[in-house]
Formats: sequence, structure tokens, C-alpha cells
Amino acid sequence: MTSTDMIQINEVQLESDPNRGNMVILREHQEADRYFVMFIGDAEFTAIAKEKGLIQPPRPLTHELYLSIMEKLNTEFLRVEIYDIRNDTFYANVYLKTDGVEHSVDSRPSDAVALALNRRIPILVRHDLFRRKLTEEQVKEYQDVVKTVKF
Amino acid sequence: MTSTDMIQINEVQLESDPNRGNMVILREHQEADRYFVMFIGDAEFTAIAKEKGLIQPPRPLTHELYLSIMEKLNTEFLRVEIYDIRNDTFYANVYLKTDGVEHSVDSRPSDAVALALNRRIPILVRHDLFRRKLTEEQVKEYQDVVKTVKF
Repeated sequence: MTSTDMIQINEVQLESDPNRGNMVILREHQEADRYFVMFIGDAEFTAIAKEKGLIQPPRPLTHELYLSIMEKLNTEFLRVEIYDIRNDTFYANVYLKTDGVEHSVDSRPSDAVALALNRRIPILVRHDLFRRKLTEEQVKEYQDVVKTVKF
Repeated sequence: MTSTDMIQINEVQLESDPNRGNMVILREHQEADRYFVMFIGDAEFTAIAKEKGLIQPPRPLTHELYLSIMEKLNTEFLRVEIYDIRNDTFYANVYLKTDGVEHSVDSRPSDAVALALNRRIPILVRHDLFRRKLTEEQVKEYQDVVKTVKF
């Protein structure tokens, strides 16, 4: 496996904790012991929770506004990729096709995950951004390390 | 002036208060004594602050992701309209044109304002949704009335 190999996500889990904040945890499958974890804002947490059917906000969220606009356009979403961490920030791309031409667009990973769940397209994460299954203690420790990480 | 007449906004003001929360205040011009006020979430506040040049988040915000996608498409944004209040919730539409056909899309007013500032298109608000200039006391009173209002 090379450092740029991607793993496809089949399990998107949300966790909210008053002390640690909102997290999204991505795994290859439900029993996988390797995780991709990132801390996300309230709005992105709400967007992903909506896409997972956990909540039903009465009004369109930001990404729903734009996706409903794009339903009127000739756009095919292909996949999203979380592909790097630089300066403590994860980076993602959204891949789409319009009029037969493929484009990639720079995105925060949280927006990319919400988009992918809405459009039912693959979420891919570079394998060396995963971590081994964390204990409660390790999660707290990790959170200290990443509390300044911006998404 | 009929009840459906719209007023064009030339002044978008943000206010954040630890007790009252985030507000966006829309006025026809800087000295106008009639206001449209709504309480908005943190993400929408950030989006409008970015569009006003008040902050520079390092990564694309949700609406920026989608607007950068749409720059690759043949979409012309025309205007946004905040046109109704129903069940304590303000309603807005985004008007756009694609391949010569005009569409309107349901939006939260906060998203519509961020989009309009980004695309430099008109913001219109139905005139009877405006309020007379409020005193500090009236703002507090108004906030009690609308604290359950969802945007």
C-alpha cells in the first residue's frame, strides 16, 4: 500500500460531547479498528446528522440550498476524497463532472462528507490519515493534540 | 405601497452579543430608520462576516464550496428575496438563470444574504417585514419574542 492509497468509507459515525465537541468518525466498515476522526463545527454536524436521517430541520440547510440549485443543472457528482493534512488542517476534494468534463473542487472534509451522503457518492480517505481504534483515554489525549485543528 | 412591495437592501450589518446571540440587520441605506432584523446561527454569521471582509477563514466555507462549483457551470444569479414569515420563520428565495430559464429556489434568509453578498446581486425584503428603529430596550423585548424563531 503506498502512502497515497485511498480507503472507501462505509461507516459515518457522529459523536457529540460537551467537553470534546463534535466529532465525525469514518471507518471502512462497522467493525474496522482503524478510524479517521475529525472535529467539526455545529453547522457541519447538523448537516451530516440530517443526511444520516437523525434529525429533520424544518428549513433547507446551506448545502441543501446549493444541491437543490444544482439539481436544475447538468452536474454529476463522482466522489469525495480526504487526501491530506497540512498545518494541522485536513484537506478534501469534491470530484464532479459537467458537460463531460471532470473537475475537482477544494473543500473542507466536513462539507465533503455531507455532500457525499446527500448525493450517495463514495467517500475516500487516504489510508495513512487513519488511526488505530482509540481508547477513551487516547481520544481525550488526541483531542488535546487537535483542539487547535481547524476544519 | 402594497403588502408585497419589496425594498432593496444597501446596508448589511452584523451584531453579536453573548446574551442575545448573532443578528443580521438589513436596511435600505445606512441612515434608514426601518430595519429588518433576524437572529442567525454561528456558521451563517461567519459566512456573512467573510463576505463583508471582516474575517478571512483559511478554508472554504460551505457556500464558497458550492459557489466555486457553480463557477464551472453556466449559472447566473439574479437576486434574493426575503418574502414571508410563517410559523415564526422567515422565508427567502434565490432567483437564478441557467440556459436562459429563470428558477427560484427555497432558502433560509441567512444563506440568501451570504450568497447575495458573494455574487454581488440585489437583496430585496418585503417592506412589511421591516421594523422601526429599535431602542436597546425594544431590542431586548423583541429578542424575547423571537428567541424561538428558527432560521
